[in-house]
Amino acid sequence: MTQDELKKMVGEKAATYVEDGTVVGLGTGSTVKFMVDALGARVKNEGLKIVGVPTSDRTAAQARSLGITIKTVDEVDHIDLTIDGADQIDKDFQGIKGGGAAHLFEKIVATNSKRNIWIVDESKMADQLGSFPLPLEVIPYGSEQVLRRLEAKGLQPAFREKDGKRVLTDSKNYVIDLHLGHIDDPFGLAEFLNGQVGIVEHGLFLNLVNTVIVGYPEGPKVLNAPERPTYQALRYKD
Amino acid sequence: MTQDELKKMVGEKAATYVEDGTVVGLGTGSTVKFMVDALGARVKNEGLKIVGVPTSDRTAAQARSLGITIKTVDEVDHIDLTIDGADQIDKDFQGIKGGGAAHLFEKIVATNSKRNIWIVDESKMADQLGSFPLPLEVIPYGSEQVLRRLEAKGLQPAFREKDGKRVLTDSKNYVIDLHLGHIDDPFGLAEFLNGQVGIVEHGLFLNLVNTVIVGYPEGPKVLNAPERPTYQALRYKD
Repeated sequence: MTQDELKKMVGEKAATYVEDGTVVGLGTGSTVKFMVDALGARVKNEGLKIVGVPTSDRTAAQARSLGITIKTVDEVDHIDLTIDGADQIDKDFQGIKGGGAAHLFEKIVATNSKRNIWIVDESKMADQLGSFPLPLEVIPYGSEQVLRRLEAKGLQPAFREKDGKRVLTDSKNYVIDLHLGHIDDPFGLAEFLNGQVGIVEHGLFLNLVNTVIVGYPEGPKVLNAPERPTYQALRYKD
Repeated sequence: MTQDELKKMVGEKAATYVEDGTVVGLGTGSTVKFMVDALGARVKNEGLKIVGVPTSDRTAAQARSLGITIKTVDEVDHIDLTIDGADQIDKDFQGIKGGGAAHLFEKIVATNSKRNIWIVDESKMADQLGSFPLPLEVIPYGSEQVLRRLEAKGLQPAFREKDGKRVLTDSKNYVIDLHLGHIDDPFGLAEFLNGQVGIVEHGLFLNLVNTVIVGYPEGPKVLNAPERPTYQALRYKD
């Protein structure tokens, strides 16, 4: 089975989780593309009625071309389910995203979704996070100081570059990748990064995913995370 | 004594704190303007050698016109002292900034400074923070959801508008002001806001200021904050 056939398989499996009359967050990436294709087929063949909330222009264009109604995250009052990819997932269902420099928008959609499904191939599953570099979206103003501070902490930061130029996100910010090798305490690291001025958002997606669908040659495997409070629910007075 | 005479007095007082051969963060605002004028006079009359790190184009232009050497926050390896204004300061030397929609850049400079001095008039001093609305810089994508979440928390949010249009910061983000009346737990609120996806930075400046100079008709009053770890120093593994 080719890599594309594996991706198609999990994409199609994920599309079966979408219920009629719901608002669906649509991630970005090659596996998600197959899922959106499958959703488009359900809209056409079953008369499935959904509203899609895309996380990128690319996904928006694809969904629109398939006849899926599109709204932005600011035009809906909630999102029932978001289906997206992930760059690394550990045994506790914690994840890293941002390999495509889009983790800010993806996290905004994910945290505003009642449920999240990630669709990945086997290579993304790991015992521990960190062998995939952790992306940070960083305000350009003062970013050299942020890099220095992260360096002083031993967090192995490097600006992400392409063709010799710093990569810019959709919000015109830089990306710094932390080449950590392993992350022993994802929640501690997230809290530290949340408190750093100049870091807009990090790529740790903690307590966010509900279901992971992994592609194996013998078929898609569905893994359900335990029920738990979302990290977002760090509460202020309640 | 007029308001301007009071501002001039504290601005000039603050300028005496700047030592030869140091890197000085230069805030923004009408009181800071008098301080920069006084610094320019010291450069001219005393041969004071400093490098200024401005937080706005306006301050940069003024400093340059006075012969003060200017570098950006990313061109210096440290800042010795930053002098800026503040919108509200409580009895514990905690502050709110962002009335000018520039708290992100101001906080980046402040957190990268060894010491911070705030220069204010008496009206900025309060027993408790919160009667001045707390500014948040917010990513436009998903900002309606952020507003709704803050509303659900009872945090009285409102987009800041000017001439019927949403105010944009220098980073092209929106500002949401929290009309709280009083903030009982600034650190708890800061932690909550730090954890919210889509909020780039809030206007709570906690454990950041070392010295406050307040203008009174009878003369400037210098208030020194107790020595304490900076909030920035939320540590990761050390």
